[in-house]
Amino acid sequence: MERVLSGIRVLDLSHVLAAPYASMMLADLGAEVIHVEPPDGDDAREYSPYIGKVDKNTSGYFISLNRNKKSIVLNLRHEKGKQILRQLIKISDILIENFRNTTMESLGFSWPEIQRLNPRMIYASITGFGHNTLPEYASKPAYDMVVQAYSGLMSITGPEGGEPCRVGNSIGDILAGHQAVIGILAALLYRQKSGRGQHYDGAMVDGLFATLENAVVRYTATGEVPEPLGTASPSITPFQAFPTKDNWIVIAIGNQKLWTQFCRVLGAPQLIDDPRFTANPQRNKNRKILADEISVRTKTKTTAEWSAIFDKESLPYSPVNNMKEICEDPHIKERKMLVEVDQPGVGKIKIAGSPIHLSETPGDIYSPAPRLGEHTEEVLKGLLNVTDAEIEALRKEEVIN
Amino acid sequence: MERVLSGIRVLDLSHVLAAPYASMMLADLGAEVIHVEPPDGDDAREYSPYIGKVDKNTSGYFISLNRNKKSIVLNLRHEKGKQILRQLIKISDILIENFRNTTMESLGFSWPEIQRLNPRMIYASITGFGHNTLPEYASKPAYDMVVQAYSGLMSITGPEGGEPCRVGNSIGDILAGHQAVIGILAALLYRQKSGRGQHYDGAMVDGLFATLENAVVRYTATGEVPEPLGTASPSITPFQAFPTKDNWIVIAIGNQKLWTQFCRVLGAPQLIDDPRFTANPQRNKNRKILADEISVRTKTKTTAEWSAIFDKESLPYSPVNNMKEICEDPHIKERKMLVEVDQPGVGKIKIAGSPIHLSETPGDIYSPAPRLGEHTEEVLKGLLNVTDAEIEALRKEEVIN
Repeated sequence: MERVLSGIRVLDLSHVLAAPYASMMLADLGAEVIHVEPPDGDDAREYSPYIGKVDKNTSGYFISLNRNKKSIVLNLRHEKGKQILRQLIKISDILIENFRNTTMESLGFSWPEIQRLNPRMIYASITGFGHNTLPEYASKPAYDMVVQAYSGLMSITGPEGGEPCRVGNSIGDILAGHQAVIGILAALLYRQKSGRGQHYDGAMVDGLFATLENAVVRYTATGEVPEPLGTASPSITPFQAFPTKDNWIVIAIGNQKLWTQFCRVLGAPQLIDDPRFTANPQRNKNRKILADEISVRTKTKTTAEWSAIFDKESLPYSPVNNMKEICEDPHIKERKMLVEVDQPGVGKIKIAGSPIHLSETPGDIYSPAPRLGEHTEEVLKGLLNVTDAEIEALRKEEVIN
Repeated sequence: MERVLSGIRVLDLSHVLAAPYASMMLADLGAEVIHVEPPDGDDAREYSPYIGKVDKNTSGYFISLNRNKKSIVLNLRHEKGKQILRQLIKISDILIENFRNTTMESLGFSWPEIQRLNPRMIYASITGFGHNTLPEYASKPAYDMVVQAYSGLMSITGPEGGEPCRVGNSIGDILAGHQAVIGILAALLYRQKSGRGQHYDGAMVDGLFATLENAVVRYTATGEVPEPLGTASPSITPFQAFPTKDNWIVIAIGNQKLWTQFCRVLGAPQLIDDPRFTANPQRNKNRKILADEISVRTKTKTTAEWSAIFDKESLPYSPVNNMKEICEDPHIKERKMLVEVDQPGVGKIKIAGSPIHLSETPGDIYSPAPRLGEHTEEVLKGLLNVTDAEIEALRKEEVIN
């Protein structure tokens, strides 16, 4: 298959999640991603779930995020490792990393130095607070959890009046990854005009904050500080999860026509003209009373029974699918969102596919995740004309694996 | 300022959130985004918070998402409205919309027809389940809430053993918007080689599902069905929010060195070698007992007091900022993540900025949101050479505003 980013080479000095998610998306689009790992490997190689025996090549966490990539081992604390990286920088298009702020500079790879080596290089860094910020922030250690809390997202996620909750996936890392891809693709487009690369200075806090646009403007425009509401919407009612006989069901009644239809289907036509619920403003005001009225009825049938009923009526609803249910969903299969990969040494495993559904050049999975250092020799020989004897020497000096 | 997407024209037939978020990101990067609205405007013009008087031009929700765009009103139910859209398609690069699946086709703008009009057109649609899926899914109505529940995300978000919770922002819409931008930029790069546009068939369910990569592989590899854990991590302990004297604080102890340091700072050095907590596997197993040990101590000081202590020790932590706190944060100001816009008829208002921090061509906010139909005349005269008399006639026939 023809791929959009064929011919684009990415040096991927990343670990764990934010930057690896970005380089994964670039690889899915066809870029040659060379994951440059330290001798003991990307930390994510140690993250559960393991598949079968526990070693550096069996982490499902790593396998899922590193499909389509190559792996080379390079000891960047060794001068000869730095030399090899310098040579690779000269022949690559993109460098991506998510070290702490000062790491690249301390290794001798500041942005000015990268530019000097390759003025066309697009350099993407992802950190908690960015490289260019106030000094007291630049050095703050930041995990996804820290960023979910710092950005404000955690303060609006969770049960009403209850404890704060984190989003169930590492959304701070993942959004930062998406935004880095946007920055990188934009920089590729611009490089065609300017001939020059640029620095994408991604910050996870900024990335999450930017997606709180409505909560932000609600505070700045009105002074109101938004709070968590469980599954409920602050502005539309009923628009939340209700308990069923065996589970939950989300019901999203976005307008008056749906309201009338929903009350009939629920077997409660008397609610339609109940003065407490006549229109959305009244329903918003009496949200809890209405939720009780609805819950007592939704509890009489299972989620599957309600689903069949709502489907027939084209009412907007959803079961609260767990991971088993969604992984077995026919839509997910039809859209190739769950892809079986034959992972050498591990066997067949299903991982999430690419959501970049382009008609001619869709993102896709075309190769399994690499074993640690699987491509060290191939890359050094093929791209840098290193000889067998030199490889042997580098290995003895523990520059490569 | 030089902008990456200068010279790229986007026809934006979108409403509310997913596609408008995408066109906002394109506009922030310099694309000319023409928001084509129906005579009564994008639905989001009716969404709170309103700023001052309530009308189509004072919704903070709309203003925040539509900065940098132009607005034209076009009645696409009228044949002359369709004619104008056809002409605009011929001179544009990108068409983006998030109608229901069949709407564009029923209006006479199927993908084959769009291609016929302009083979270079990049057409991005965003729906709940995509255009190309099983028929029983294609017609399903989907709001962000529905997608959060359907994708599995809601099943892993919320308090341990408690009710499911939605993510506090409309993350299903917003991720779909990011992914559409990635698809569009990729298609722009590919068009330079192929000369042809393509269809980006975005699906909100796919977009969210793809970000659950770890939960997906946990299920497919082990059969384990992940559940919500409040703020806790399934694999690292202590790594969650703890109560303080006045609020909460997130503490992220990612390795053994931090553990030792943390216990000292907490005033509980006896925990370091407590056999229940010696290393991460023990701490994972005894997570709740440990949380009690920690909470009883974190409750003795305020979040601000703990923050000062943890800052001095460089421990990874975060206050659980509310929207007021994060909007007033010096980092957010320094990074231009909160930008004051002078919105005609409304006054000065602060909205979230662009997280695409590129060194030469950053995303930025350069113009306020448009009034409904503000640019109808400008666009029709400037791009399509429509005369004043013709404009008058179109207005009388209610094709434009």
